[in-house]
Amino acid sequence: MSLKITNAKRIEGLDSNVWVEFTKLAADPSVVNLGQGLPDISPPVYVKEKLSKIAAIDSLNQYTRGFGHPSLVKALACLYEKFYQNQINPNKEILVTIGAYGSLFNAIQGLIDKGDEVIIIMPFYDCYEPMVRMAGATPVFIPLRSKPVDGKRWSSSDWTLDPQELASKFNSKTKAIILNTPHNPIGKVYTKEELQVIADLCIKNDTLCISDEVYEWLVYTGNKHLKIATFPGMWERTITIGSAGKTFSVTGWKLGWSIGPNHLIKHLQTVQQNSVYTCATPLQEALAQAFWIDIKRMDDPECYFNSLPKELEVKRDRMVHLLESLGLKPIVPDGGYFIIADVSLLDADLSDMKDSNEPYDYKFVKWMTKNKKLSAIPVSAFCNEETKLQFEKFVRFCFIKKDSTLDAAEEIIKAWIRQKS
Amino acid sequence: MSLKITNAKRIEGLDSNVWVEFTKLAADPSVVNLGQGLPDISPPVYVKEKLSKIAAIDSLNQYTRGFGHPSLVKALACLYEKFYQNQINPNKEILVTIGAYGSLFNAIQGLIDKGDEVIIIMPFYDCYEPMVRMAGATPVFIPLRSKPVDGKRWSSSDWTLDPQELASKFNSKTKAIILNTPHNPIGKVYTKEELQVIADLCIKNDTLCISDEVYEWLVYTGNKHLKIATFPGMWERTITIGSAGKTFSVTGWKLGWSIGPNHLIKHLQTVQQNSVYTCATPLQEALAQAFWIDIKRMDDPECYFNSLPKELEVKRDRMVHLLESLGLKPIVPDGGYFIIADVSLLDADLSDMKDSNEPYDYKFVKWMTKNKKLSAIPVSAFCNEETKLQFEKFVRFCFIKKDSTLDAAEEIIKAWIRQKS
Ligand SMILES: Cc1ncc(COP(=O)(O)O)c(C=O)c1O
Ligand SMILES: Cc1ncc(COP(=O)(O)O)c(C=O)c1O
Repeated sequence: MSLKITNAKRIEGLDSNVWVEFTKLAADPSVVNLGQGLPDISPPVYVKEKLSKIAAIDSLNQYTRGFGHPSLVKALACLYEKFYQNQINPNKEILVTIGAYGSLFNAIQGLIDKGDEVIIIMPFYDCYEPMVRMAGATPVFIPLRSKPVDGKRWSSSDWTLDPQELASKFNSKTKAIILNTPHNPIGKVYTKEELQVIADLCIKNDTLCISDEVYEWLVYTGNKHLKIATFPGMWERTITIGSAGKTFSVTGWKLGWSIGPNHLIKHLQTVQQNSVYTCATPLQEALAQAFWIDIKRMDDPECYFNSLPKELEVKRDRMVHLLESLGLKPIVPDGGYFIIADVSLLDADLSDMKDSNEPYDYKFVKWMTKNKKLSAIPVSAFCNEETKLQFEKFVRFCFIKKDSTLDAAEEIIKAWIRQKS
Repeated sequence: MSLKITNAKRIEGLDSNVWVEFTKLAADPSVVNLGQGLPDISPPVYVKEKLSKIAAIDSLNQYTRGFGHPSLVKALACLYEKFYQNQINPNKEILVTIGAYGSLFNAIQGLIDKGDEVIIIMPFYDCYEPMVRMAGATPVFIPLRSKPVDGKRWSSSDWTLDPQELASKFNSKTKAIILNTPHNPIGKVYTKEELQVIADLCIKNDTLCISDEVYEWLVYTGNKHLKIATFPGMWERTITIGSAGKTFSVTGWKLGWSIGPNHLIKHLQTVQQNSVYTCATPLQEALAQAFWIDIKRMDDPECYFNSLPKELEVKRDRMVHLLESLGLKPIVPDGGYFIIADVSLLDADLSDMKDSNEPYDYKFVKWMTKNKKLSAIPVSAFCNEETKLQFEKFVRFCFIKKDSTLDAAEEIIKAWIRQKS
C-alpha cells in the first residue's frame, strides 16, 4: 500500500465501536436482544401514519431548509418555550440534526478546538470520547461514584459526582462539560442541587455545557427532569440536545435537535452546512405533525410524553425483579430505558471465551449471548481505556421491549436459575 | 461575550452559503424558481409508495446497521457490479451516507489531513472548498477553460482542462483530486480520453480521486457516463459517490453512498460512526425496494435510469431555446439538469442593487428575482474567492421542472423580450 493512501490523523484509533460489534452478535434471530437501545414496542400509530401520508406529497420529498424544516423548528420552539423562561427563536436558536448524534458532533466540531479540554462524566454514552478526540481535544474524565447501600435497593440516585473532585477537573483549558440527564447507562436523573453545582462551575470557569437530554420525557415516579439551560447564567453557555428517536420511539428516523443561544447555534449550523447540509424532509414534516398532536395535550395522560414513561416504569420494575431473581443487585434507574447490574455475582464460567485481553463484561456478554441466547451491552464500553476496570463487572439491559420480548427474557432467566440451583 | 465562548478554528470563515442565501430569496411563492437543484416533477410513484408502506412497519422505524441498511447495500452492490470489473462487497466496499454531501464529508474528513493539498476543478459544487478547508487542507484550483466557438452553439464539451496545467497542480503534498462528472453547473460529461489524463496523473503522483457522480444517469444523446474507478489502477485509489436524491428525484431523502476499496471505505466508516452513526431506516429500505424495481429492468426504456434522461433532454432543449430567444448563448449541457449562460449580454440595469461589493452574477440574480420574479443561482458561487471574476457573468438555471413551471418561465422571458424590443 502506498504511503499516501492512508487515513487522516484525526480518526486514528477511533475505528472500534461497541454498537457495530454487539449489534452483529445479537443479529441471530434466536437471541433475545436487550442490547442496543432499540425499542421493539410499536411507535405511536399517528407517528407512522403521518409519515405514510407525507410520503405521497411530491414537494415533501424534496430539499428543505438546511437548518431545520420550517414547520419542525416552529413546533420545537413552541414545545420547549414551555420549559424555558425565554422565547425560542425557531430559526436562530434551534438546529435540526441527524439524530442527537449529529447534534453532539456539530456542537463538538463547531465549538471545540485542538488543545481544549472537555470534561466527560463516566460512564458515558460511548461516542462522546471519540468525538472529542476527533476534534483534537483532550477528554478529562470524572466518574460517578456510589455510596454504600448495604441492605437497601441500589438506586441510580446513589451514584453522584464528588463536587470537590469535579471542581478539580476545571482549568483554563476547559472548554466544555458534557452532561447527560437522564443518564445512559445508569438511569440517573440529576437533581436541582447537583445541576447547580455543575452550573456554578461552568459560570465560574467560563465553560460551555453540552447537555444531552435525549431521555428527557422518560423519568419515573418521584423524579423530575430539569434543564440546566434554565439555571441562571446558563442559557448563554448551554447547548441542549434532544432526539426524535427517543421522544417517539422511532430510533430509525435519526432526527435530533440542538437548542441554545444564536451565538453558539450559529457555529453548529456552520458545521451542518459543511457536512450534511440538511435532514430528510418527509421525516421532519412527519415529526412536526406528530409533535403538534402531543403539544396540544401535554397535560393529558394520553400525551405520549406522559404515557410512555408510565408504560416503561412497569417494564423497569419487571426487569428489576427479574434481575433480582437471578441474585443480582441491579441499579434501579430513575430515568431512561436501561438498567445495569454487576454480573460477576453470577460466577459465570468464561474460561472458554477466547480473547483474554477483553474486559470481563465484554466476555460475559459474548458468553451470555452464545450460551443463554440473551444479549446485553458491556458497561465498560461507556468508559475510557484507563477506567474500564471500574465498571467492567456491569452490563446494561434495555427494557423498552414489548411484553413478549420480556417474557422470553424471563423464560431464559428462570431456566438459568433452575440450572444454578 | 467571553473569550471562551467562540467557534472552533476549523470553521472560521466557512459560514456563508449560497443555498441558504438564495433559497430564502426564492421562497416568495410568486417567484418562478429555477435556482436550487430541486425537482418539482413528481418522483416515481413506486418510490413514494414504498415509503408509505414501510412507514407502517414497526421494525423499519428503528436503528439499522450503521454503515448501510443490509438490503440497501445489497441492492447497491448488485446495481454497480454491472459497471465495475470486480464484484463489490456490500459490507466492506459501500457506505451509505447522509446524501452525497455526507459521502463527500466522510471522505474528506477520513482521508485528508492538515497540510495536504486537494485539487478542485472550477467551477465546482460549492461545498468542496469549505469541506477541504474544514479538514485543514489547502484547495488548489484549476479552471475548466473554453475554446472559442464563434458561430456554433456552445457546448459543455467545449470546456476542458489543459493537461499541462493540470499536471502542474500535482506535487508531493497532493492527497486527492475531486472530480465531478456529469458536472454541476456546466453539464460537462468527461470523455474517456479526459478521464485517462486524470487517471494517469493520479497514478503517477499516488493521489486519491474523489469522484462525485451524482448525475450519473442523467446524460444526453451522444454521451456516455464513465466511471474513473473502472480505469486500470484507479479502483484502489477512488471513492465514487452517488445520490438517491438525484437518482430518483427525491432530494429530500438525503441518502447517498460511497463505493471504493475497503482500505479507503473503512476510514469513511470511522468518520460516519463518530458523526451521525447511521442513516434513516425507513428511507433506506424504501430506496432499496425502489432500486430492485429498476435493477430488474435496466434495458427497458421504462427503467427510471433511462426514462428520466429522456424526459430531461426535452426540457434541456426547451431551456436552450428559451435562453437563446433572450439573445443569450447558453452552454448546452451534455449531462445533469443545469444550464448556464452569460447574462451580461442582457445589459440589465443593476444600478439600484445595493451591495456593490457583490459579484455581478449575485447582483443580477437578486435583480432578476425581484424585478422579473425568476430565480437562478450565480455561478461565481461555484468558484473560489480569487477566481470569481472568471465566471461572474454566468448564472445557472435548473431545468428538472414540470412543464407548467417552464411555461411560467417562458411567459416571463417572453414579456422580458417584448420589453427589451
Ligand atoms: C445518551 C444518548 N445520547 C445520544 C444518543 C443518540 O441519539 P440519536 O439516535 O438521536 O442520534 C443516544 C442513543 O442511544 C443516547 O443514549
Ligand atoms: C455535484 C453535486 N454533488 C453533491 C450534491 C449533493 O447531493 P445530496 O443531496 O445527495 O447530498 C449535489 C446536489 O446538488 C451536487 O450537485
